[in-house]
Amino acid sequence: MKQIAVFGAGRIGRIHATNLAALPGVKLRFVSDPMPGAAAELAQSLGAEVASIDATLADPSIDAVAICSSTDTHSELITRAAAAGKHIFCEKPVDLSVPRAQACADAVRAAGVACMIGFQRRFDPTFNEAAKRLAAGEIGKPEMLIITSRDPGAPPVAYLKASGGVFRDMLIHDFDVFRWILCGDGDEAAWLSATGSVLTDPAIEGLDFDSAAVTIRTRAGRLCQINTSRRAAYGYDQRFEVLGSGGLLQCANQTSSNVVQWDANGIRGDKPEHFFLQRYAAAYRLEIAHFFECLQSGAPFRTTVADGVAAQRLADAATESAKTGQPVVLS
Amino acid sequence: MKQIAVFGAGRIGRIHATNLAALPGVKLRFVSDPMPGAAAELAQSLGAEVASIDATLADPSIDAVAICSSTDTHSELITRAAAAGKHIFCEKPVDLSVPRAQACADAVRAAGVACMIGFQRRFDPTFNEAAKRLAAGEIGKPEMLIITSRDPGAPPVAYLKASGGVFRDMLIHDFDVFRWILCGDGDEAAWLSATGSVLTDPAIEGLDFDSAAVTIRTRAGRLCQINTSRRAAYGYDQRFEVLGSGGLLQCANQTSSNVVQWDANGIRGDKPEHFFLQRYAAAYRLEIAHFFECLQSGAPFRTTVADGVAAQRLADAATESAKTGQPVVLS
Amino acid sequence: MKQIAVFGAGRIGRIHATNLAALPGVKLRFVSDPMPGAAAELAQSLGAEVASIDATLADPSIDAVAICSSTDTHSELITRAAAAGKHIFCEKPVDLSVPRAQACADAVRAAGVACMIGFQRRFDPTFNEAAKRLAAGEIGKPEMLIITSRDPGAPPVAYLKASGGVFRDMLIHDFDVFRWILCGDGDEAAWLSATGSVLTDPAIEGLDFDSAAVTIRTRAGRLCQINTSRRAAYGYDQRFEVLGSGGLLQCANQTSSNVVQWDANGIRGDKPEHFFLQRYAAAYRLEIAHFFECLQSGAPFRTTVADGVAAQRLADAATESAKTGQPVVLS
Amino acid sequence: MKQIAVFGAGRIGRIHATNLAALPGVKLRFVSDPMPGAAAELAQSLGAEVASIDATLADPSIDAVAICSSTDTHSELITRAAAAGKHIFCEKPVDLSVPRAQACADAVRAAGVACMIGFQRRFDPTFNEAAKRLAAGEIGKPEMLIITSRDPGAPPVAYLKASGGVFRDMLIHDFDVFRWILCGDGDEAAWLSATGSVLTDPAIEGLDFDSAAVTIRTRAGRLCQINTSRRAAYGYDQRFEVLGSGGLLQCANQTSSNVVQWDANGIRGDKPEHFFLQRYAAAYRLEIAHFFECLQSGAPFRTTVADGVAAQRLADAATESAKTGQPVVLS
Repeated sequence: MKQIAVFGAGRIGRIHATNLAALPGVKLRFVSDPMPGAAAELAQSLGAEVASIDATLADPSIDAVAICSSTDTHSELITRAAAAGKHIFCEKPVDLSVPRAQACADAVRAAGVACMIGFQRRFDPTFNEAAKRLAAGEIGKPEMLIITSRDPGAPPVAYLKASGGVFRDMLIHDFDVFRWILCGDGDEAAWLSATGSVLTDPAIEGLDFDSAAVTIRTRAGRLCQINTSRRAAYGYDQRFEVLGSGGLLQCANQTSSNVVQWDANGIRGDKPEHFFLQRYAAAYRLEIAHFFECLQSGAPFRTTVADGVAAQRLADAATESAKTGQPVVLS
Repeated sequence: MKQIAVFGAGRIGRIHATNLAALPGVKLRFVSDPMPGAAAELAQSLGAEVASIDATLADPSIDAVAICSSTDTHSELITRAAAAGKHIFCEKPVDLSVPRAQACADAVRAAGVACMIGFQRRFDPTFNEAAKRLAAGEIGKPEMLIITSRDPGAPPVAYLKASGGVFRDMLIHDFDVFRWILCGDGDEAAWLSATGSVLTDPAIEGLDFDSAAVTIRTRAGRLCQINTSRRAAYGYDQRFEVLGSGGLLQCANQTSSNVVQWDANGIRGDKPEHFFLQRYAAAYRLEIAHFFECLQSGAPFRTTVADGVAAQRLADAATESAKTGQPVVLS
Repeated sequence: MKQIAVFGAGRIGRIHATNLAALPGVKLRFVSDPMPGAAAELAQSLGAEVASIDATLADPSIDAVAICSSTDTHSELITRAAAAGKHIFCEKPVDLSVPRAQACADAVRAAGVACMIGFQRRFDPTFNEAAKRLAAGEIGKPEMLIITSRDPGAPPVAYLKASGGVFRDMLIHDFDVFRWILCGDGDEAAWLSATGSVLTDPAIEGLDFDSAAVTIRTRAGRLCQINTSRRAAYGYDQRFEVLGSGGLLQCANQTSSNVVQWDANGIRGDKPEHFFLQRYAAAYRLEIAHFFECLQSGAPFRTTVADGVAAQRLADAATESAKTGQPVVLS
Repeated sequence: MKQIAVFGAGRIGRIHATNLAALPGVKLRFVSDPMPGAAAELAQSLGAEVASIDATLADPSIDAVAICSSTDTHSELITRAAAAGKHIFCEKPVDLSVPRAQACADAVRAAGVACMIGFQRRFDPTFNEAAKRLAAGEIGKPEMLIITSRDPGAPPVAYLKASGGVFRDMLIHDFDVFRWILCGDGDEAAWLSATGSVLTDPAIEGLDFDSAAVTIRTRAGRLCQINTSRRAAYGYDQRFEVLGSGGLLQCANQTSSNVVQWDANGIRGDKPEHFFLQRYAAAYRLEIAHFFECLQSGAPFRTTVADGVAAQRLADAATESAKTGQPVVLS
């Protein structure tokens, strides 16, 4: 029985805590949050207790912590948890600063603990099935990846200001998908060009982009295009397709039902699931289960802090490229 | 906290027990099975105890029982559980004999307990969404229902001998779907014609049909066609479409991923989920949750023992029609 | 260069005449119609002349005639054209009376001319591709056929009165599809049950059915279900699927474009093509081309007058079954 | 009756000549080709005559010419035909050199003749339906366009050497689609970045790219991404999707049938039509019909020589960007 604590009782903290509590072999012991009410409510509903971060890290019975607090706390909590000898699950991103993220990677390695970063898309059943078939050679060698990543609507301007920008906030996941799908054999990004616009809401102008396009060429010459918008009238749109020498693998969205309605207006299926909580519900379950299976078996995580740092570097490069209008050559 | 016992630790018993154990507000207390090892294993994995049926029914702390044992035990267990004042969830069918099924309905009513029959298709997210849209008038009034119901492969001959035949064993669910979808406003089957063949395996000849076609006309003149086969090379095929005065609602199968593979052979999506345990996994969860929500709120079940009896009558009529080659007029 | 005349300048006559005129190796010589204006307009637009039926049949340079006049004239024109030694293309049906249709078959055989019946669905690219794959064994042996055949709206009551009823008027095509798909190896219908209702328009009551369901069992035990409605709110719906021992072939409708629109209401594709003129436009072209290829090569037609008679017999059986409520055993 | 001549009896010349010959109101008079046998065969099959270019241009009865000869002859033939007062249909591209293409535009304007460039994708029923819905505001204002453009296989190296490179040879069509879809309101490309690789065949290295990715930002900030490969194992892949403020329009490929086959390997639809002759068969028919409708009515063409020049400028910019690794700012 592994004992675990969750830091952060917000939206994503509640998801991970609930999924943890349902896992056989796991005991959710503590919940911590700056807002005591939120921590208490979550702890109570899952049979856990409220505890401070200090107390949690000092408790030798705690095997691992799940860091689900706000982005600006991630690097400090990773460093402290590593120093306390706890294994770590941390939501993306490691840190908005690549040097600080790299410092986390160093701290984790030095402490000899395991640290997994929450790139849940790698656990989405559809994306994962495509990745498995690609790895099995079903479409030959990968050549080109097209990622579509659109949110149903932009977050409040206050959020955008602190977000680090669309490339670090939204596309960090897509940069990880790029690395997962196109660089599975050790290939790496060599050249990146990004551009962006504000098309959905003038209030965003000057703060961030709401529409962006990224192109990456790898050392092996593989190409990746990512298109994104913070607003899609039909909902959350998360697709990719990878062209290989022998065919194409296409990942469609997930819908809440398979009903098709035929009437005078046409033949109509469901919209994609509304947003990430719905779309990636299964992925979140499978992700945290993977975390515990690896803790128990000693197997390596699918996504480490090094993956977090690498995605962050691409996000930084895209941010710079979109600002300067020039491509970035990656070393 | 409702306390419950499960009778039967076989395939379907394990599903219901596991889903029950995960429900907040429910305590799975006892598991009973003629094979003590199966009962012990299931009980242990879910933190319950093994108990005999007699002991379970005599325990006043038990609120409800879930009958997941073999078909031939259903009517006796319903009757005994009702007499003991327990609420009942019972897998379909109530009984292969309509009079005995009707006796169960009488016993349940006399005892004042609630009894839900496990027609899980009513809880399938896709089927249920179609039913909701139909009820909301999105395609006007229903006129015609086409049900496709195919198994991936025939069960062993020994199973077929005891099954009551394809109409009672497989199509009982489809008869319930017919009643749910076409008779929601009180309409009823008026005329039924069925025919069957043995096409997949000569060993079935004389015992049962493996391929069958049923047509039902209701009092209001609505038409239903059901086609079934015990063997589909591509897996479990569970679809229906309902034509209304204003359009059509079509329910597609569920697949394990949304990957589409394009190659020299064509553009290929996943097969349907393999069999009922996979296809109806969500339905089983939602079904048992509904059972408990109704127990707690006092709301009526979506499927009662009367629905079980009504579906059974249609199965009997189809069996007779296929045998005689003549339609059956239903009173 | 084959010289041909068209009898009938109505909707279907114009289609066949236009397709004939575009065929290399064919000279459309004469058009005949009871309404001289219609004949003149069609003839002029295609560089042909108006001629009477008598004159046409007496002209030794005419190789073949295409009978596109009203149903009640078909049998007489077939008989006369055969006697005049002309090869014949005739729109379905041969005749609403099976004995008269059989007499046509006899006349054609006696005259030694070739006579093709216009079952254009056999030339629909999608249906034909399915038939070819079935014949090639791609899904093993056929076991079950489900046909959906729905019109966008009912014709005027005056038309219905003269139509011979839904089974002879609409389902004649579907009976031919049944024979084409399930009886390709010489199998035949052995048992047929039909039922019908009036659900779309009370004005049809007593005259005809607007909704009908047919089941056919063949000598080999294969099963066919046909469902039909004279009114589908979303347009002309013409699909079939055939289950074989090794898989399923499903024929979807044709749409006018492949645009898919995603918006707040869902993900929406086009409705099926509006009606038979649009849906079967390619089929009509391919059908008449086949007629001429066979005339030139001496190869047999895909659909002969015998096929017309056989479909008519099934239509008669269905009409009787729906009237009496009893199945018909076919000899 | 308009009299027309076709220059070039190769693959595309045969298509246009055949479509012209089938148009009412058009008389195909002359065919010209450097290979007399090819000209004679095509002319004979369509009831036309062989004539030299000189004789054709000197014949006052000729209203228009269709230039379907090799790319390097286009600009000279446009200039000469314009000088001779003939209206012109010319296959893309106008010329691989933008200045020469611009000179053609000037010559056409000076001569007062009409000149249409063969961007047939604007006549593809699916693409055109999407364009119409976009223009009708069905998805609000356009924001982002994703174009997928893949050939089934690379042409011979000799062809590649003379082709002007992938951006001028293949993507010229896609640049026109970009202008058609995103710039319908007068918007224009402002910034373009392109990159390319050789992934499918080492023989292409140094000559051209076989895989390429282009991004364009317009003055209004709209974004376009184009991905292309000269080799897709599953055939010719021609799709685009346009995201608007109110939704998404997605254009799927066309297939030769709508058969869906279900078997142990999955659920499989047809591949896309093999190549451009099949995929754009309807577009070629509609394009040439549009040319004649406009000649007769005096309405403007959908695609003029100015569109040809504009697409060529984008192809040049992409070629330069891919070579230098730097974006191009368009004035």
